[in-house]
Amino acid sequence: MNMIDPNLPATDPGDAATVVAGTLHGVGLGPGDPELLTMRAVRLVQESPVVAYFAKKGRRGHARTIVDRWLQPGVRELPLYYPVTTEIAHADPAYNAALADFYAEAATAVALELGAGRDVVLVCEGDPLFYGSFMHLYIRLKDRFRTAITPGVTGMSGCWTAAGQPITWGDDVLTVLPGTLPEADLTRRLATTDAAVIMKLGTNFPKVRAAVAAAGLLERAVYVERGTMAGETVLPLIEKTDDSAPYFSLVLIPGNGRRP
Amino acid sequence: MNMIDPNLPATDPGDAATVVAGTLHGVGLGPGDPELLTMRAVRLVQESPVVAYFAKKGRRGHARTIVDRWLQPGVRELPLYYPVTTEIAHADPAYNAALADFYAEAATAVALELGAGRDVVLVCEGDPLFYGSFMHLYIRLKDRFRTAITPGVTGMSGCWTAAGQPITWGDDVLTVLPGTLPEADLTRRLATTDAAVIMKLGTNFPKVRAAVAAAGLLERAVYVERGTMAGETVLPLIEKTDDSAPYFSLVLIPGNGRRP
Repeated sequence: MNMIDPNLPATDPGDAATVVAGTLHGVGLGPGDPELLTMRAVRLVQESPVVAYFAKKGRRGHARTIVDRWLQPGVRELPLYYPVTTEIAHADPAYNAALADFYAEAATAVALELGAGRDVVLVCEGDPLFYGSFMHLYIRLKDRFRTAITPGVTGMSGCWTAAGQPITWGDDVLTVLPGTLPEADLTRRLATTDAAVIMKLGTNFPKVRAAVAAAGLLERAVYVERGTMAGETVLPLIEKTDDSAPYFSLVLIPGNGRRP
Repeated sequence: MNMIDPNLPATDPGDAATVVAGTLHGVGLGPGDPELLTMRAVRLVQESPVVAYFAKKGRRGHARTIVDRWLQPGVRELPLYYPVTTEIAHADPAYNAALADFYAEAATAVALELGAGRDVVLVCEGDPLFYGSFMHLYIRLKDRFRTAITPGVTGMSGCWTAAGQPITWGDDVLTVLPGTLPEADLTRRLATTDAAVIMKLGTNFPKVRAAVAAAGLLERAVYVERGTMAGETVLPLIEKTDDSAPYFSLVLIPGNGRRP
């Protein structure tokens, strides 16, 4: 099995042989409540000499906010600032190009720390391997450095917990859909699943609501904003009449499977 | 919003007015590694006078094993023993009837503790509201007692982390499929999703492998057994030639979405 090799050489071949390279840790922070970090996430954050995080330029960043209470004095912070987030449409080739440059630069910044022998904990909202920005550094660095990943509670788990809504029962099929999909595609997929989570709402929200209605699911759908965080909002989707849905929001269609 | 009401009366109406009823906590323990409990899960387990868990008769149970290192001396343990697990086919009405009786009895046992004023922490593998047995007690007790749920890292997150495989990128659609579905249904759903997780393998495993092959995904599929636990196994599905797949195993089809 060579998909991941825990025995990669601990030294960066580009370095002097006396420096043992650091480990890149991708650490999930969970859905937002700082008490929902795992024990391992807290330990790694507290032990690591360097804590890195993605953020929008000029902001502190959500991951940095979640991890705030667990940071030790003297830790080196390495913010990685996105050049764009929503200013360019994601389908625009310029978006991909800007992000590719950014991830290459971010990988270089992290590699400098690792090459100097320092572990880097890159903290991530939710789970690092589930729609996470961490993955873009991981694929750029995993063949050169030792890596380790700590899974986290996903944002969607935080949201169905906030709603008190079991999401899947028995043999339910769950479909996780980005709200960026075309409306007809969303409608068709919603109509053929038992349970669903629709992420990435933002400006897609009116389209998502229309797709939920077209699939005949408006009565069952739940809207959740900032699940497990300050300002948490849970509403039946049918009662949400405005069109604004921030980044930390999603729509749940709870399943209806076998309940002995 | 009345889907969940944090302001339910704290006293069980059936009790003497002087006893303040306890709270039922559904607490996710994560995928198996005891260090993947959240900070809140550990706190609740350590604070609660009663820790309940589901187990197969005659076994300690997996949740009890995960939580072992965090239990305090003197805690009251309340094991809830399933009358059947795999002895009766899940489609058999006798299975549903046996489980319905069991969940009613388990709810009564938990209600006795709550009614006597003791909080009960019901510990659950993974996330309590994602295919969890906790949900069956939750729906029976949530209108009579105060309840609170702590989400956990799902077993599937633990498995894609063990495999070092990002599961979803960009606008990937993720489908979570129980291996209990008919082969044709599995094949059709696998052929029309970007990424997939197939759970509940067991005796369904040969059928699941056939469905993955029929969907043309055998080269991309990864088999994971006991992710994050002792005895963890990660294999390309194509290299797994036997038919045995225990309860704690699943098949991943990692997504291939946008990678700037």
